Amino acid sequence: MAGSTLGIIYRITTWGESHGAGLGVVVDGCPAGLPLTVNDIQSYLDRRKPGQSRISTPRKEADAVEILSGVFEEKTTGTPISLLIRNTSQRSGDYTEIAACYRPGHADYTFDQKYGFRDYRGGGRSSGRETIGRVAAGAIAAKALSEFGIRLTAYTKSIGPISIDPAAFDPAAIRETPTSMPDRDASARAEKYLSDCMSNYDSAGGVIECVIDGVPAGLGDPVFEKLDANLAKAVMSVGAVKAVEIGDGIGVSTRNGSSNNDPFRIEDGKIVKAANHAGGILGGISDGSQIVLRAHIKPTPSIFSPQDTVNRQNEEVRISIKGRHDPVIVPRAVVVVESMAAITLLDALLVNAGARMDRLKTIYKN
Amino acid sequence: MAGSTLGIIYRITTWGESHGAGLGVVVDGCPAGLPLTVNDIQSYLDRRKPGQSRISTPRKEADAVEILSGVFEEKTTGTPISLLIRNTSQRSGDYTEIAACYRPGHADYTFDQKYGFRDYRGGGRSSGRETIGRVAAGAIAAKALSEFGIRLTAYTKSIGPISIDPAAFDPAAIRETPTSMPDRDASARAEKYLSDCMSNYDSAGGVIECVIDGVPAGLGDPVFEKLDANLAKAVMSVGAVKAVEIGDGIGVSTRNGSSNNDPFRIEDGKIVKAANHAGGILGGISDGSQIVLRAHIKPTPSIFSPQDTVNRQNEEVRISIKGRHDPVIVPRAVVVVESMAAITLLDALLVNAGARMDRLKTIYKN
Amino acid sequence: MAGSTLGIIYRITTWGESHGAGLGVVVDGCPAGLPLTVNDIQSYLDRRKPGQSRISTPRKEADAVEILSGVFEEKTTGTPISLLIRNTSQRSGDYTEIAACYRPGHADYTFDQKYGFRDYRGGGRSSGRETIGRVAAGAIAAKALSEFGIRLTAYTKSIGPISIDPAAFDPAAIRETPTSMPDRDASARAEKYLSDCMSNYDSAGGVIECVIDGVPAGLGDPVFEKLDANLAKAVMSVGAVKAVEIGDGIGVSTRNGSSNNDPFRIEDGKIVKAANHAGGILGGISDGSQIVLRAHIKPTPSIFSPQDTVNRQNEEVRISIKGRHDPVIVPRAVVVVESMAAITLLDALLVNAGARMDRLKTIYKN
Amino acid sequence: MAGSTLGIIYRITTWGESHGAGLGVVVDGCPAGLPLTVNDIQSYLDRRKPGQSRISTPRKEADAVEILSGVFEEKTTGTPISLLIRNTSQRSGDYTEIAACYRPGHADYTFDQKYGFRDYRGGGRSSGRETIGRVAAGAIAAKALSEFGIRLTAYTKSIGPISIDPAAFDPAAIRETPTSMPDRDASARAEKYLSDCMSNYDSAGGVIECVIDGVPAGLGDPVFEKLDANLAKAVMSVGAVKAVEIGDGIGVSTRNGSSNNDPFRIEDGKIVKAANHAGGILGGISDGSQIVLRAHIKPTPSIFSPQDTVNRQNEEVRISIKGRHDPVIVPRAVVVVESMAAITLLDALLVNAGARMDRLKTIYKN
Repeated sequence: MAGSTLGIIYRITTWGESHGAGLGVVVDGCPAGLPLTVNDIQSYLDRRKPGQSRISTPRKEADAVEILSGVFEEKTTGTPISLLIRNTSQRSGDYTEIAACYRPGHADYTFDQKYGFRDYRGGGRSSGRETIGRVAAGAIAAKALSEFGIRLTAYTKSIGPISIDPAAFDPAAIRETPTSMPDRDASARAEKYLSDCMSNYDSAGGVIECVIDGVPAGLGDPVFEKLDANLAKAVMSVGAVKAVEIGDGIGVSTRNGSSNNDPFRIEDGKIVKAANHAGGILGGISDGSQIVLRAHIKPTPSIFSPQDTVNRQNEEVRISIKGRHDPVIVPRAVVVVESMAAITLLDALLVNAGARMDRLKTIYKN
Repeated sequence: MAGSTLGIIYRITTWGESHGAGLGVVVDGCPAGLPLTVNDIQSYLDRRKPGQSRISTPRKEADAVEILSGVFEEKTTGTPISLLIRNTSQRSGDYTEIAACYRPGHADYTFDQKYGFRDYRGGGRSSGRETIGRVAAGAIAAKALSEFGIRLTAYTKSIGPISIDPAAFDPAAIRETPTSMPDRDASARAEKYLSDCMSNYDSAGGVIECVIDGVPAGLGDPVFEKLDANLAKAVMSVGAVKAVEIGDGIGVSTRNGSSNNDPFRIEDGKIVKAANHAGGILGGISDGSQIVLRAHIKPTPSIFSPQDTVNRQNEEVRISIKGRHDPVIVPRAVVVVESMAAITLLDALLVNAGARMDRLKTIYKN
Repeated sequence: MAGSTLGIIYRITTWGESHGAGLGVVVDGCPAGLPLTVNDIQSYLDRRKPGQSRISTPRKEADAVEILSGVFEEKTTGTPISLLIRNTSQRSGDYTEIAACYRPGHADYTFDQKYGFRDYRGGGRSSGRETIGRVAAGAIAAKALSEFGIRLTAYTKSIGPISIDPAAFDPAAIRETPTSMPDRDASARAEKYLSDCMSNYDSAGGVIECVIDGVPAGLGDPVFEKLDANLAKAVMSVGAVKAVEIGDGIGVSTRNGSSNNDPFRIEDGKIVKAANHAGGILGGISDGSQIVLRAHIKPTPSIFSPQDTVNRQNEEVRISIKGRHDPVIVPRAVVVVESMAAITLLDALLVNAGARMDRLKTIYKN
Repeated sequence: MAGSTLGIIYRITTWGESHGAGLGVVVDGCPAGLPLTVNDIQSYLDRRKPGQSRISTPRKEADAVEILSGVFEEKTTGTPISLLIRNTSQRSGDYTEIAACYRPGHADYTFDQKYGFRDYRGGGRSSGRETIGRVAAGAIAAKALSEFGIRLTAYTKSIGPISIDPAAFDPAAIRETPTSMPDRDASARAEKYLSDCMSNYDSAGGVIECVIDGVPAGLGDPVFEKLDANLAKAVMSVGAVKAVEIGDGIGVSTRNGSSNNDPFRIEDGKIVKAANHAGGILGGISDGSQIVLRAHIKPTPSIFSPQDTVNRQNEEVRISIKGRHDPVIVPRAVVVVESMAAITLLDALLVNAGARMDRLKTIYKN
C-alpha cells in the first residue's frame, strides 16, 4: 500500500508524478444519478492552476481533464470515474543537481530512505502537482454535496503576518484576489509582503480556513472515524500542512469550560446552538452548525537563497534551487483544502446512510 | 461501521460504554513473539486512572485488565489479543436529567440525532472511559516499538495560561506531578490555577506534547497515508482534542522558507538534520529526527455552573451538572495521546516492511 | 493484520483460542434500533454446541454468551456490540504430543512456519471453536435481515455418499435430525454411515446448502465486491471448506448457454426469472430470486487411526490422535455457513444504501 | 464504494467500460525496485486478446497498454502504477434493443435495479473487457512473485464434456492451442465440440485450473484472511465463475479422513507432505506444497438463439442477440484466473512480512 486510496464508500485513488505522462484519480463509490460534466471538474482544477498572477509560478499548465469512465449521458453511473490530466508543460530540464542532493524541506531524502531510490524529476510523486487528483475528486464530491444543500467555502485567512479582517469579509473577493483572501485590502498588503519575500529570494506561509454550511446533524462516527479526525487526516495529508484546527482550535487550551461550551437553544421550533466554539462537531459527529476548520501551511521550501545540504554520497554541499516556484503555496492550496473537506464529508454522509434501522426501512421496503 | 477499528496491519477495535459491563479492545496484527505480560498493559492503564490527586475526579476505578487471548507463555502468538476491563465503580445513579436534556459541549445531542436514541448513562460510548481500550492497545504498541529502539514521551505542555519552561524540563517529573508536567514549578502553579477554576465551578484546557525518539527514516507513505496525517487522525480522534500540530505547527504560517527549512548535514558519517522545524517528518515520511506533535485539549465540558440548554421535548431548560468530574482532562489524557502515537507508528512500521524488493528478499530467500 | 476483521460497514472482529480464557466477537456497524436480546444470540450458539447427539463429540460446553456493550434497553445503540463466551470445559490435558508433532490435515505446521511457534492447546486459534464468534455475529445479522423480510435456511445436503432427496424436503427436520438434514430417511442412513466410520476410527465429509429468500434486487457491487465473491470468501474462510458453489455451481461447466440462461418473465406485473440456474446473482448483484450456495466440507482431520507425520525436530513419527472429536463436521457447521451468509448479506445491504442519489435524498431531505 | 479496489498492501483499483474511452488499473503498493517494462504487461494482455482463433470473437482489439506513472528508468518506484488501455474497436452500433430489454444471463437487469439506469453500450462495466485491468495488474504481480521463485500456471481443464488427460499434460500446449488446453488431442476435440455449439447458435462452459509452485509456507492469515478464502473471492469475482475449488475441492465431501489427510514426511532433511489433497493450504496458510485451485465457468450468456425476456416497460419480449461473441469464455479467461491468483498471492506475501518480530528485526536493525 503506497497510501494512494482514501475513504470507505466514496473512495478515491490518486496517481501520477510531476514529470511523468500525467496525473489522475479514480473515484469509486460516487452515487449513481449525479449530473456531472467535464466543466464541473475543470472549473475546480482551474482554481489551482499556476501562472495566474504575479505571486504564482509563471509555468503555464493547461491541466485539462478527460473523463475516461463512469459517466454516461452526463450522469454518474455508480461505477468508477477515471479522470486523466496529461502533463504538458514539463521542461525536459537538467535534474542532475536535484538527483544528486537532498533539497531542505523536501521529501527527496525520505523517499530515498524509504524506497532506495526516487523519481527525482521535479519532485516526482511528492510534487505539489500530486494534488490535481485530489481537486478533481473534490469537485465531484462538492457537486454531490450541493445536491443535499451542503456548501463549502475555503479561503486564505492569512499570509505571513497579514490576516484578513472578519469585519471586511467579502466572499466575492476569494476568487478575484490573487491571494484568495476574502478581504481586498488585506490581499493587497499580502501581495506587497510576498513581493518583499521574492526580492529576498525567500518564501512565506499562511493559513487557510474552510467553512461548511448546510451539514445535517449526525455525520461522522464515534471513536476513530470521528468527522473531525477524518477532516484532520484529509487536510494534514496535503503536503506543507503542519497543523489543523477545528472550531476555536488552539484557542480552547487557554479557555474555561463556561466560556467554551456552546449552549443549546430553540429557534423557530428547532434545536440550535447559541455559539459555535466547537466548529460544528460534538463527539466527532456533526451538530448541524457550520463546520469550521483551519490548515497552517509552511513556506514554500523551494527558495532561491543558497542552502546547506548533503548529497547521496554523504558529502556536505551548498545548493541554489532554480526553476519556477510559487513564493507562497497558500492561494493555490485553498481549493485543495476545500476538496479534501468535500471528499471527507461526502464519505461520512454515505457511511451514515446505514446507521439507523428506521432510515434503512425507508430504502428497503418489503 | 461505527468507526471502532483503526489501522492497516496493527489493527485495533475498541468497544464499551462507561456504565455497561465493561470496556475493551481487540488488537489484531501484533507481530508474533513479542514478550508481553499483564503488567506491561496495566502500568499504562494505571497512568490514566482517576482518583490519584486533588485535581482528578475522586472516583475510584480499579480498571484491572484481563488478557483473554493472543498471548501464550508470555509471548504474543500473532493472533488477536483481546483485553477486558470490567466496569466496577459505576454508581447506579439518577440519570433522569441527562437522559432528558442535552449537556452543552457533550455528544448527547449528536448521538440522538445520529442514532435516534442513546445510552445516556454517564455518556455511554462518548465517555472519556472509551479511551481505556486505546491505552491498552497503546501499551502493546509501545512495547513492540521499544524492541526496535523507539521511545515515546508525552507530557503536559500547558494548562490554561501556565506553560512549562523548556529550560526546566525534568523527565522524571512527568509521572510524579499531578499535572504530568515535566516542570515541578509550573506544575505547582497549574495546580493553583485549577483550584481557582474549581472554586468557580469551572474547568480548564491545555496542551499535550509527545516526542518520539529512535524512529528510523522511511516510515509513512506518500499522499493519504502520510505519517503526519495518520498521527493527526489518531490524536484528533481523542475526545476533547480540537487542534493537532506537527513540529513547529502553527508557527510555520508566519515563518519564511529560509528559517523554516531544516538543512541537512553529516554527523559521524551519517546524514542528519541541523534543525527540526519539520518535527521529524518530510513529505509524510519519517526523516530520522525526533518526531514532535502537540494536541490542544478543550476544557472539561462538565462544569457545576448552571448552563442553558434544551431537552428532548424541544424546550429551553437550565441544568446544573452533578457527579464527579475532572476539572481538567489534560493530565489523564497524556497517556492517551502517547498511546495513539504508538499505535500509529507501529502500524506505519509494519506497513513499511513490504515497501522494497531488496528488504523483502532478506525475508523470503528462495 | 492477523485477519480477524471482516466487512465494510457491518464489520466483525473475532478473537479467542480453544483453550484460552474464552472467545468472542466485536460487532461494529450494526444499525441502531434493532431489538436484540441475549436469547437471539444464544439460540444460534446452541445450534453449534457439541454433545447433542451420538455423532457429535461428547464434550459438554455451555457456550453461554454475555453481551458486554452496544445494547441498551434491549435495542442496539449503533455502537460496537462486544460478546464474550467463556471457555469452561477445556480439559487441562496433556498436549506434549500435539506440541511436539504436526497433526496431518491440521494447521499445526503452517502456524509454526508463519509465527515461529504456536499455542498448541487444542488447536489454539485454528480450532473449530473459533467459529463461535462468527455464529454470534451471524445471529445479529440474521435478526437484522429478518426486519427486511430476508430469511436464511442452511442444512446438510449430503454426508459422505448419502444425499437428501429434494422431493422429501422437510424444513422442520433440519433442527430435529442429528445430521441437520431436511430429510429424515436420509438422515437415518447418514447416521448409520457415520457409525461405520467411527467403528473404523475414521471420519466423513459432506455438503452444506444455504438458501436465502426475500433478498431485494440490487445488493452486491460490480467487480471485486460482487455478492457471490464475498459469499465465497466468507464461506471458504470457514475451516474445512474446500469448495464453494453459487447456484448450479460446478454444473455450469458442462452446460450450454441455451439451457443455463434464466429467462425473464412478468408475474403479477413484476419482473421475475423463469428459472434460477444463476442462484439469485447476476453480474455479482442480487437479482431478486432465491440465493443458493453450497459449501463442501472435508472429513474431520482428527481421526483415531494411527498416522504418519513428523515432529518439530524433523523426525518422522507415527501418532494416534486422542481426545473427543466429531466424526463429521458438517451438522455443527450448518449454522456457521448460515451465519457467514447472513454477515455478508447484511454488509451488502448496508453498503448499497449509499448507491443512488434518489434513495439518499429520501434520507437526507434538505 | 462500487467495489473496484482489492487488496491490503498490493492494492489494485480497476475502472472502465467496454464502450467508453478506455479501461485501466491503478496498482498501489507494488514494492519499489522491481524491474518492469511495458512488455511485461503487454505480453499478459495479449493472452486475453480476442480474434486469435476460430473459437474467439473476430473482434480485433489492439489493447495496447500505456504506463502513466510509477515506473522510472524501468524500475517500479513504490508509488502508484497507472495503466491505460484505450478502447479502439468499439463499433458505434445500434444498442436500442439492449438498452430497452434485459439479456438473460447478463447483468442488465441487476444494474438497472441497483443504480436506476445503466451504460447499456456493450455491457458497460459488466463487460468481459472489465478484466483488462485485472490482467494488467496480474502481470505486475506475477513479475514480482517470480523474483521470489513463485511461478503460476493456469490452463483449461475442460470445455463442455471434453477434459484433458493428466497423462498427456504438455505445458507448451497451453499457449499454442486455441483452447489453452495442455493436451493437444483434447484441445482438438474441444474445438470440434465448440464448432457444433456455434452451429447450434449456442455456447459452452468449462473449467480452468491454476497451479502455483514455489510458494513458501506461512502465507495467508488465520480466520477471515485465509489464503484460500482470498483466492476464492478473487476468482469468484471474475464474471461467469460459479464455483471455486481448492485442492481436491468437491471431492473431499465424499472422502474419509484417513484418505484425505496429507501425511508429513522428511525429504532431504526438510518437512514435506507425502500427498496434496489440501491443495497447498492448511488452516488458511500455505504449507509449502503446490497450490491448486479450479474455477468453473458458465457458458457465454450471449447466444444467437432467440430467448424469452422482458423489457424496461415490464413487457415480455423475445430477443436474438447480435454482435461478435466468443462461443466459450474459458480460453481467454485462463490468464484472468492466473492474474487473480497472482494478485492475491503477492498481497499475502507482503502482508506476511510483518508477522514475526524476528523477521522484522532483520529489516529494522537499531
